[in-house]
Amino acid sequence: MKRFAIILNGCGSMDGSEIHESVSVMYAIDRNGAQYRIFAPDINQHQVVNHLTKEAMPEQRSCMVESARIARGEVSPLSELRMEEFDALVFPGGSGSAKNIFTYLLDGENFKVNEDIAGIIRAFHAAGKPIGAMCIAPLMVARVIEGATVTMGKDPKTSSIVEKMGGHALPTQHGEVAHDRRNRIFSVPCYMLESRISDIFTDADCMIQSMLHNM
Amino acid sequence: MKRFAIILNGCGSMDGSEIHESVSVMYAIDRNGAQYRIFAPDINQHQVVNHLTKEAMPEQRSCMVESARIARGEVSPLSELRMEEFDALVFPGGSGSAKNIFTYLLDGENFKVNEDIAGIIRAFHAAGKPIGAMCIAPLMVARVIEGATVTMGKDPKTSSIVEKMGGHALPTQHGEVAHDRRNRIFSVPCYMLESRISDIFTDADCMIQSMLHNM
Repeated sequence: MKRFAIILNGCGSMDGSEIHESVSVMYAIDRNGAQYRIFAPDINQHQVVNHLTKEAMPEQRSCMVESARIARGEVSPLSELRMEEFDALVFPGGSGSAKNIFTYLLDGENFKVNEDIAGIIRAFHAAGKPIGAMCIAPLMVARVIEGATVTMGKDPKTSSIVEKMGGHALPTQHGEVAHDRRNRIFSVPCYMLESRISDIFTDADCMIQSMLHNM
Repeated sequence: MKRFAIILNGCGSMDGSEIHESVSVMYAIDRNGAQYRIFAPDINQHQVVNHLTKEAMPEQRSCMVESARIARGEVSPLSELRMEEFDALVFPGGSGSAKNIFTYLLDGENFKVNEDIAGIIRAFHAAGKPIGAMCIAPLMVARVIEGATVTMGKDPKTSSIVEKMGGHALPTQHGEVAHDRRNRIFSVPCYMLESRISDIFTDADCMIQSMLHNM
């Protein structure tokens, strides 16, 4: 049975991992006969956002503790992620990810990637193991893996940043996977595009099936 | 297009709505060609639970604000739920539900149901509109609708409470729907049973398809 490591960073699109993308990729891995284990960085979220009003709340929440809501308690710190134990790595998106584990929504095109996360991406890449990324997460992968081909859906701003970094941004619609064969990176648009919830499940399933067919 | 009202009460199995059940029922409604709108009571959660340690946290969180994480902001207070605008009503589960909108996990078999929720259940029932309930939520429906047939999976404790209340508890496994034809109640076991995440999606889809076939 193939084993996926999923990395979350909270519970909610605006300050953590996008919930539908996280759940859809867990479901896709399970229904396609593979297994997953969920990890999260043991750090506080950049902020807490009221998802009703879209305003910041004067609170502190932990990426790991909030990720445990999606994972039903089964989440481990990044320090326990041994690349050797997994066949593939997956990042759901969510704009919170672009504040917690990379800083695009804080620093724009000069964004940085969390060093632990960058190290994990490099380790899987160096071992030739597939890396999957959804929604905004491909931008982060393109920063770490030089010359990567990823999709940012049809978003011009993030696509042009990918190109500036020396990567290639492939426009996609739902049901299409940007597959970088050389780097073994698989990315899908999800909520970078106008979406119904079933589009997210389509994208997650297409990505996981493509990854499994290329292992 | 058939319209479902989904009622959530937070974001996380231990202190709100179970996330996989909530997302799977949204997905099932969408993929089967129907629409949904999400509602939540405008009250605080009974408590906040750290889903990693399972311990209570000294915080207050709002059922509506946390539900907005699952709903991506699109959640309305119960006071805006007009039964006339919907064809069916659905309750995902989560043990948090049995503290926030009914009190089974606080009061045992003498539990009470939130008056607003009970009124909504009665209104849909009186109008002959289907009511769906997942996991622990059927227990709540069986309290409000006298003589209801529901499933509590194979759980002996909650099943015996249903029987004591004058209802009937139908044992089910994943993929089976307890369908009370007289009362138009459709219930599925979900996390009342040992489950893989794909079992939850199977149960949600079976429930929604049964409801749609009976409208």
